[in-house]
Amino acid sequence: MEDLAYYNGKITRLSDMMVPFNDRSHFFGDGVYDASIAKNGIIFKLDDHLERFFNSMALIDIQPDFAKDDLRALLGNLCQKLDADELFVYFQVSRGTAIRNHSYPQPLKPNLAIYMTPWQGDFSGQNRLRLMTLPDQRFELCHIKTLNLLPNVLASQKATLQGLDEVVFHRNQRVTECAHSNISILTNGVFQTAPLDHWILPGIARKYLLLASQALGFGVSEQAFTIAEMLAADEIIVSSSGALCAPVSEIDGCPVGGKDDERLQQLQTKIYQDFFKETAVE
Amino acid sequence: MEDLAYYNGKITRLSDMMVPFNDRSHFFGDGVYDASIAKNGIIFKLDDHLERFFNSMALIDIQPDFAKDDLRALLGNLCQKLDADELFVYFQVSRGTAIRNHSYPQPLKPNLAIYMTPWQGDFSGQNRLRLMTLPDQRFELCHIKTLNLLPNVLASQKATLQGLDEVVFHRNQRVTECAHSNISILTNGVFQTAPLDHWILPGIARKYLLLASQALGFGVSEQAFTIAEMLAADEIIVSSSGALCAPVSEIDGCPVGGKDDERLQQLQTKIYQDFFKETAVE
Repeated sequence: MEDLAYYNGKITRLSDMMVPFNDRSHFFGDGVYDASIAKNGIIFKLDDHLERFFNSMALIDIQPDFAKDDLRALLGNLCQKLDADELFVYFQVSRGTAIRNHSYPQPLKPNLAIYMTPWQGDFSGQNRLRLMTLPDQRFELCHIKTLNLLPNVLASQKATLQGLDEVVFHRNQRVTECAHSNISILTNGVFQTAPLDHWILPGIARKYLLLASQALGFGVSEQAFTIAEMLAADEIIVSSSGALCAPVSEIDGCPVGGKDDERLQQLQTKIYQDFFKETAVE
Repeated sequence: MEDLAYYNGKITRLSDMMVPFNDRSHFFGDGVYDASIAKNGIIFKLDDHLERFFNSMALIDIQPDFAKDDLRALLGNLCQKLDADELFVYFQVSRGTAIRNHSYPQPLKPNLAIYMTPWQGDFSGQNRLRLMTLPDQRFELCHIKTLNLLPNVLASQKATLQGLDEVVFHRNQRVTECAHSNISILTNGVFQTAPLDHWILPGIARKYLLLASQALGFGVSEQAFTIAEMLAADEIIVSSSGALCAPVSEIDGCPVGGKDDERLQQLQTKIYQDFFKETAVE
């Protein structure tokens, strides 16, 4: 198959799948998701993604009727149905299907939705992103990977319309994260990224960038930084499960970064090697 | 029919309707909605609801492919298909159906979804609500009636589990609104309700409570009030399109209100008369 969708046991082409009108995702965005990329049928850092996914469910009181191992096996089987070598793998759960009401009946069987599409990763490390800044108007549950993403959608569209790649959110000049990525800086050999609180998602690429920085002997800091500190940084790095370690060349029209290409390349090499090693066929 | 769902021209029983997996409501809550009650096939304050609905769409850059008059006619026709005398009428639009991506393709045909179910209004005015307070963790787009309602869901569930009716949100003690209603107070003959900013929804019942208060010669104020001011008020009034003017008897376990039953009843009478007059068959 070229792509697929899975919904509560049913499998179709992505564009053919239908879901119940009364799925609570449809009315409330009442669910959580996770996503990664796969190569050779192996989903990168799947254990981390499963852990975060189950944690997201627990944080909004969704009780899954499947175990991590069940989902791991299902995702692996679905990967085998696809033709492409590299895949984008997305999975979400909604609280369930019920007549619309803010409060929900308990117990309620959650709806598991998965889709997979061909993916083309950029592992050149050469493509520098262009960003814009915007005030962070999101809610105080940004540490949970929920389906309440309208502010992220509106911000992303602003960037897209200006031909830019991402938006950096800030709260009173304090940088939080991007619309669909984390953001970190390299300054004087120190890798710095915002702390894990309710303003940012605990990014898995972020976690491995911290570990890689330590392994490379860089300093590391999980202290928040400001827009001004970001603009003055040696390098600015956007990270997500799709773009593992993407450097930045421009923010709000001003040239930024590009002052520590050596450490940047060391980081990228380490992160990409990790990806190719984990997803290699034996 | 006992109930119905409408989706882009298709009509079924509510539990039978299916929507595309790739409807952006399913991934992002990327849409807006509105709702009212109908009696005798007449939807109460429909012009206000249509105006707010179209305004919500404009605020998140959704371009409807239908006019207000089209939707008015459609809703009226759908009401005729139902057996019940009183109906809950819900309509929402999502940005459209597209492969998942935060940014959206343009132009994109929006998806119009409607459902109607039997409704039992309480016009006794006697039922006093019991509330609890919670910090307002929502985003800064509360003036738009969006499908990003997870904080509202989680708060409502907390109240339900304690046998309570609603949650009063506050930001650093400043009362904003409830999880799915506005909230106002009556103190020394003055009807006071929070101003229309990005922290509250411009409630239609709220608007008519303000107008009714003026008509009755009460003082009116659109200044924010605190939790302490609310607890000390003569009456506390929760309002929504379903509960037009519901008084409160208890907040966080403490008895409140009940000190200006005369003005409360005047308000309720005026609001209910408006409802019965507008929805009367000629």
